[in-house]
Amino acid sequence: MGKSTVTLASGHDMPLVGFGLWKVPKETAAETVYNAIKVGYRLFDGAYDYQNEKEAGEGIRRAIDEGLVKREEIFITTKLWNNYHRKEHALAMAKKQNAAWGLGYIDLYLIHFPCALEYIDPSIRQYPAWWMDEAGAIALDKVPIRETWEALETVVDQGISRSIGISNFQAQSIYDILSYARHPISSLQIEHHPYLVQPDLVTMAQENGIIVTAYSSFGPQSFLELPPAFSKRAKVTALLFDTEPVKKAAKKYNVTPAQVLLRWATQRDIAVIPKSNNHERLAQNLQVTDFDMTKEELEDISALDQGLRFNDPGFYLTQPIRIFA
Amino acid sequence: MGKSTVTLASGHDMPLVGFGLWKVPKETAAETVYNAIKVGYRLFDGAYDYQNEKEAGEGIRRAIDEGLVKREEIFITTKLWNNYHRKEHALAMAKKQNAAWGLGYIDLYLIHFPCALEYIDPSIRQYPAWWMDEAGAIALDKVPIRETWEALETVVDQGISRSIGISNFQAQSIYDILSYARHPISSLQIEHHPYLVQPDLVTMAQENGIIVTAYSSFGPQSFLELPPAFSKRAKVTALLFDTEPVKKAAKKYNVTPAQVLLRWATQRDIAVIPKSNNHERLAQNLQVTDFDMTKEELEDISALDQGLRFNDPGFYLTQPIRIFA
Repeated sequence: MGKSTVTLASGHDMPLVGFGLWKVPKETAAETVYNAIKVGYRLFDGAYDYQNEKEAGEGIRRAIDEGLVKREEIFITTKLWNNYHRKEHALAMAKKQNAAWGLGYIDLYLIHFPCALEYIDPSIRQYPAWWMDEAGAIALDKVPIRETWEALETVVDQGISRSIGISNFQAQSIYDILSYARHPISSLQIEHHPYLVQPDLVTMAQENGIIVTAYSSFGPQSFLELPPAFSKRAKVTALLFDTEPVKKAAKKYNVTPAQVLLRWATQRDIAVIPKSNNHERLAQNLQVTDFDMTKEELEDISALDQGLRFNDPGFYLTQPIRIFA
Repeated sequence: MGKSTVTLASGHDMPLVGFGLWKVPKETAAETVYNAIKVGYRLFDGAYDYQNEKEAGEGIRRAIDEGLVKREEIFITTKLWNNYHRKEHALAMAKKQNAAWGLGYIDLYLIHFPCALEYIDPSIRQYPAWWMDEAGAIALDKVPIRETWEALETVVDQGISRSIGISNFQAQSIYDILSYARHPISSLQIEHHPYLVQPDLVTMAQENGIIVTAYSSFGPQSFLELPPAFSKRAKVTALLFDTEPVKKAAKKYNVTPAQVLLRWATQRDIAVIPKSNNHERLAQNLQVTDFDMTKEELEDISALDQGLRFNDPGFYLTQPIRIFA
């Protein structure tokens, strides 16, 4: 049986398997999270953009109040949205998000995208922040990544988050942060599945002590439920569940194809954050550190790589871009 | 007939077709450059790494001395190597390279790679700088890209180079520079051919007023003459010259496949810097702005895209990496 936690560069431990809150409706988030804790989940991966932080926090607090878990057994990841990259906005937003969760502190706070958009006052327009301004344009803002990273370091200094990291960053941007970081990059969260392996990026991150967290571990499956702009690419792609190396391993180890896909990541020290609305699958997705595939089986799955990215803003954002307005 | 120059964001004009000095032997560089000027070349694309700046400069000065061209008709691009990213080293290196060319000023000075390596004193070990230190390891240095970019801005301020830019940068790194640049990014030089189109990167650069310059326009062909680590990937790839859409356009327009590949770039406002040791091809490569392919023909060629990168340090550098030694 493999390990079920990893130690971040910050010194804090993080579960290798968590529950992803993307696409979990606000209305059911508290109940979903509470039930996930009952099933055994301890890590919850949220974001300002997912619009359910307050409700997820309610679910966790209910479980704590009932004595199911202690706060220190729970690990909360959340993310700073693109409109709040300026120093003062990032710090204010971290405080605001921390208050929404209501659990005293955040465990891991990530820059959601390496992309700064013009500020939107959250008291005027809280949701949807997403990518567009009121006029429907993508309005970029001139905020160096360093300013945002250093704001996150202040978030650590002030005890708002214990660890910090990044999401959707390429290798060049990571090398750059490493050249000036005062607090370590604890995690890099990226789209990662056998159709988009990015082996060089993963190796580079791991060589530098950065824990990689995979999102959309099931590839196209994660995007089918979304609106057409998002799901178009996924709909014309064969499901990973139906590919030969995945089916073969599932049969051999008597697990589901989903479990094979998650184990393919965790066995290579990559954390995963699946979500499911189905109680049985919820439990199955957590059982993905207790069987080991062979090196050849892992490589056969990796050989499905097509460099195929589904969460590709360059693809799904067709709105006009206002460049540095 | 299409235009043969473009105006950079700095306000200076640059020829759309130039002569690339990569792999031109030091021993013949002066003669090669002098002959290229006779054929009609006006842009020469060099680099500290190519080890032939002094000789290229000699060839240009000979042509100027003989009255073939004036200095202001010539456009020199050269590049800062990875070991000199620190502010003081970058400025000293720009002066040293400018002195080597011996033409008063550089036209365009680029950061060669977004990757800082430990300093090597050029008076002790001038060549090969390349990627490894004396021990054969790749020793990274902690220099933020911003420090190097601002050093290049000083290079402009001091009149050493008229324009500045970058090479081998990804979109995220470019957005970051755009957030703080005091002088514009005039050009982005990247590997660009129908097997590696990178349409999002090209669009993003062009939308931001950055002229894209393509290197290795012939794809695998450019790498066959190199040592095995470099040429391995190229040797197993079909030559672009032999692909159907390229052959078809060559036949229709009565040009060579090489001219089709170069025109595919220039017709989309992308500069090219081919090199040839063959006199006839040297002249042909310059004649790539005077026929226009149809939109469909350009797209058929772009459809050869495989995301296939030949100049991939993550592939050809197998030496151990000392991370931030």
